Amino acid sequence: MKQARLVLVRHGQSVFNKKDLFTGWTDVELSEQGRQEAKAVGQMLKKAGVYPDICFTSWLKRAIHTAQIALHELEWEHINVIRSYKLNERHYGAWQGQKKEKIKQEVGEKAFLSVRRGYDVAPPPLPQNDLRLVWRDKKYATLKHTLLPLSESLKDTKQRVVEYYETELLQELQQNKTVLISAHGNSLRALVMHLENLTPKEVVELEIPTGEIVIFTFDGKNQIVNKEIL
Amino acid sequence: MKQARLVLVRHGQSVFNKKDLFTGWTDVELSEQGRQEAKAVGQMLKKAGVYPDICFTSWLKRAIHTAQIALHELEWEHINVIRSYKLNERHYGAWQGQKKEKIKQEVGEKAFLSVRRGYDVAPPPLPQNDLRLVWRDKKYATLKHTLLPLSESLKDTKQRVVEYYETELLQELQQNKTVLISAHGNSLRALVMHLENLTPKEVVELEIPTGEIVIFTFDGKNQIVNKEIL
Repeated sequence: MKQARLVLVRHGQSVFNKKDLFTGWTDVELSEQGRQEAKAVGQMLKKAGVYPDICFTSWLKRAIHTAQIALHELEWEHINVIRSYKLNERHYGAWQGQKKEKIKQEVGEKAFLSVRRGYDVAPPPLPQNDLRLVWRDKKYATLKHTLLPLSESLKDTKQRVVEYYETELLQELQQNKTVLISAHGNSLRALVMHLENLTPKEVVELEIPTGEIVIFTFDGKNQIVNKEIL
Repeated sequence: MKQARLVLVRHGQSVFNKKDLFTGWTDVELSEQGRQEAKAVGQMLKKAGVYPDICFTSWLKRAIHTAQIALHELEWEHINVIRSYKLNERHYGAWQGQKKEKIKQEVGEKAFLSVRRGYDVAPPPLPQNDLRLVWRDKKYATLKHTLLPLSESLKDTKQRVVEYYETELLQELQQNKTVLISAHGNSLRALVMHLENLTPKEVVELEIPTGEIVIFTFDGKNQIVNKEIL
């Protein structure tokens, strides 16, 4: 019998990753290496014979393009693609677009690590008149401002990701579909934390490398029966 | 008030169009010219300020890529994309992959034109063991064989396109969305025939050129109040 599967793909290297900048909701392109990683994802799916029934992505183009390139490589471009800002990367507040090393020097290593590795500490929020505010972007303009974060802890990210999982993804899994999600380091960590019931301490240790594919298989009662890493 | 709009885009030149072959459900790539035409579509949408809420495409990659390239150019890649084989091009049966000129010589001009310009005449069907049968393709394998055509008249194409319009597209329009459809010469003609109540004689005269964008605006009762060509 066909079993529900959740196939998690983290986007490949972006032009910001390459420059060691905080990205968050900044909508940057994949680097050439990132495009190659996405292609490799498609090849791995093909080799493993994993053909998704539906694809979900965030609203950020590095995740959108990763899915496009991987599905093109898989020769499986006809599936529906549903996108939501709720799968976006953790919002990095006022640190977005800043060099990580520079922020570390400014705030000190302790404060820096408490944000990066802590569970419920958010970076300083974007000021209300900041040019980086997403509601200045037409894509987000139709959403209520209060829904849109100015900064997030991993806990905040988890809240919206889990809400999305429960309202949108679960109903696909309940139809025994293979669901591909192309998203981000932290939005995927948040989801895995929920799926595997990890503690805040455990999730801090969890790293989902780019170019790896994590596949969860479910029984008929939404319980995970297998976790596989391609 | 926001009004429902249907934005019809015909895919650009494919590698088969270029060679003057019958294409139908053959899944061929866009040519370089076709990719440029798709880019121009995105630029025209941007100039006209048309930002779709949702996108529909056929299962054929020339329509899938046309939408991808146009939305990339529009910087509007975050919308959901729903795809169906019901928006595929008219199925050209045993003529698929054949040179148009060769078929014309074989069957004579009268028979050739009755299929190409007639409303209810289908080309000869694909034989049951033909390598071009789509159910040999994994993408179509989950569908009932009896749903899949072996050849189609424009009337046959219209039937499935209108069914899709009524079950899937209408509900989006009823929410006053701007709905982008990236599809094919004949599946779009079939849809326009339905929308504008054209007779079989009138639809024969109707040509939707590649690179043009047709926009229908609706009132709250699914009646067309405007037709605009970009």
